[in-house]
Amino acid sequence: MKKAKHDRILLAHGGGGQLMDELIRNLILPKLKNDVLAELGDSAKLNLASGSVCFTTDSYVVKPLFFNGGDIGKLAVCGTINDLAVAGSKPIAMALSLIIEEGFEIKLLEKILDSISEQARLNNVDVVTGDMKTVEAGAADKIFINTAGLGVKLPNVDLGMKNIAVGDKIIINGTIGDHGMTIISQRKDIKFQSSLKSDCACLASLTCQLLQNITGIKFMRDPTRGGLAATLNEISRDSALSIEVREADIPIKAVVQTAADMLGFDVLNIANEGKFVAVVSPESADDCLNICRKHPLGKDAKIIGEIVQTHDVPTVELITKISGRRIIQMPYGRELPRIC
Amino acid sequence: MKKAKHDRILLAHGGGGQLMDELIRNLILPKLKNDVLAELGDSAKLNLASGSVCFTTDSYVVKPLFFNGGDIGKLAVCGTINDLAVAGSKPIAMALSLIIEEGFEIKLLEKILDSISEQARLNNVDVVTGDMKTVEAGAADKIFINTAGLGVKLPNVDLGMKNIAVGDKIIINGTIGDHGMTIISQRKDIKFQSSLKSDCACLASLTCQLLQNITGIKFMRDPTRGGLAATLNEISRDSALSIEVREADIPIKAVVQTAADMLGFDVLNIANEGKFVAVVSPESADDCLNICRKHPLGKDAKIIGEIVQTHDVPTVELITKISGRRIIQMPYGRELPRIC
Repeated sequence: MKKAKHDRILLAHGGGGQLMDELIRNLILPKLKNDVLAELGDSAKLNLASGSVCFTTDSYVVKPLFFNGGDIGKLAVCGTINDLAVAGSKPIAMALSLIIEEGFEIKLLEKILDSISEQARLNNVDVVTGDMKTVEAGAADKIFINTAGLGVKLPNVDLGMKNIAVGDKIIINGTIGDHGMTIISQRKDIKFQSSLKSDCACLASLTCQLLQNITGIKFMRDPTRGGLAATLNEISRDSALSIEVREADIPIKAVVQTAADMLGFDVLNIANEGKFVAVVSPESADDCLNICRKHPLGKDAKIIGEIVQTHDVPTVELITKISGRRIIQMPYGRELPRIC
Repeated sequence: MKKAKHDRILLAHGGGGQLMDELIRNLILPKLKNDVLAELGDSAKLNLASGSVCFTTDSYVVKPLFFNGGDIGKLAVCGTINDLAVAGSKPIAMALSLIIEEGFEIKLLEKILDSISEQARLNNVDVVTGDMKTVEAGAADKIFINTAGLGVKLPNVDLGMKNIAVGDKIIINGTIGDHGMTIISQRKDIKFQSSLKSDCACLASLTCQLLQNITGIKFMRDPTRGGLAATLNEISRDSALSIEVREADIPIKAVVQTAADMLGFDVLNIANEGKFVAVVSPESADDCLNICRKHPLGKDAKIIGEIVQTHDVPTVELITKISGRRIIQMPYGRELPRIC
């Protein structure tokens, strides 16, 4: 690989000329190499197994860029793969778009590209097309990443809120709050020492295994921004059914709970980046749990509650450890900016 | 449509909670409405006519956001549609991702969404999935937009550099430099009065008509950043053939030429946002020109040059108006930051 001529990103790196071409050919292409990307066409040309596809996009503005358990690059790939995975598809291809502030260190860009490359490779997803823009110093905070993704729908899988019925079980594949609490613990103005680690991970290998082996999965969603509280409220609202979850069954690491208590956050509202919530028929729940628990990303999986009859309006209720009840509300939105 | 509660974007609008949900449901969904988007799933589920698809992404950081002939929203839709169009596909669906600075006026966001909606509708492309992130005041310059696009490949169309041969004609569908010179003329530090207007336009209706009617089209590309100079150099380098273009045949508006001369720019390096360069077999060139000239986006189309034998290394040469010759080089990249 030819060494880049510069240590930092210049505005001219986004100008569509020689400098951009060099950066793409010497730094980006070698890290993400695949035949489709190598053509550097205006669009990637793909021959998918079927025209039944899932398509998603997410921009990432996480601060700090590097955190325990991941970085903005890993987060971008996992976030997009997870959106495709919980929609019932096998992720195939990604588009990568970078907005970089003038002066950003090229060695940090390399680290981020290494993460992107590693996650893409581990998940058999190719980065097939991309874009890079530069903005003046002060016009963006270091680097923002957008990833769009394409997946091919798994045959005979039709996930949707419409499938959800009273009695269905709610399963989560592991502990909640790890990502959000890790990010907040590493912010400049708060920073504290802890063993907090983001759960940032790509879920497709687990979701595909589940969906190919279990017919009773009705719906899946990854509880990212807004946390488990937002996802449960969305499920309740859109299915028009109520939900009961048991506090004692929701897996939370002690260090996450302690950090949240200390800072005054409700762990239910905190973002996750390697979790899914699945709504599963009661007959399939144990099989689902068994498959999860044999997978590294599902070893702490639990049935945390059920879909129940709505009496007045659809609500999400928590049965507390001392058998009290409280409503879990849709979070307002101001908990944690720039968590992903 | 329910009125938004706030005049400006708050950080909490990106928090994944109630506020974000309200903004999406009350402002964004009504403007972009279609059945797939309305599901607000983690991914859009699409049934395409075929698995042979084109996939592209671009981020937009243009400054100013609003300019004569368009705005960042129109630019984002057209840019993505054009990348799909010149790759030989019919654009079908788009993903829209917004990164918004805290404090951005919601009425400006509405204007931008109106442009996106209008261009999407005019081009029969649905915005099927999206994302929104907010960052603190000062962490981004107002709003950045990413659009990813999906197109279905036109049957029996196989565009590629490999098809290009000596004797092929080079066609452009109209005047060059309009977009870039318009943007630069409206920058705060330069601002001058003129009749400059961006050529920002979606080319798919014209490219699809051409590709469905003419078999001799070998390759197409839209000369955006780096202008005609960059595109011709890419074609020459990747086909390993030389190119000759005639200065007298390159359509340039007098006002664009004057502005470029005044500010010291070479119009060949200036970005276009509603142009394609097509490499066409000599037998098909006139038919191609005829179709172009009957279309509003091709009325100034011209054959500007030819693919010629390479002698030493592949070069792009300009035959000047006084029959001199000069090499058109790949621009370095520093001409115009944030042009798109």
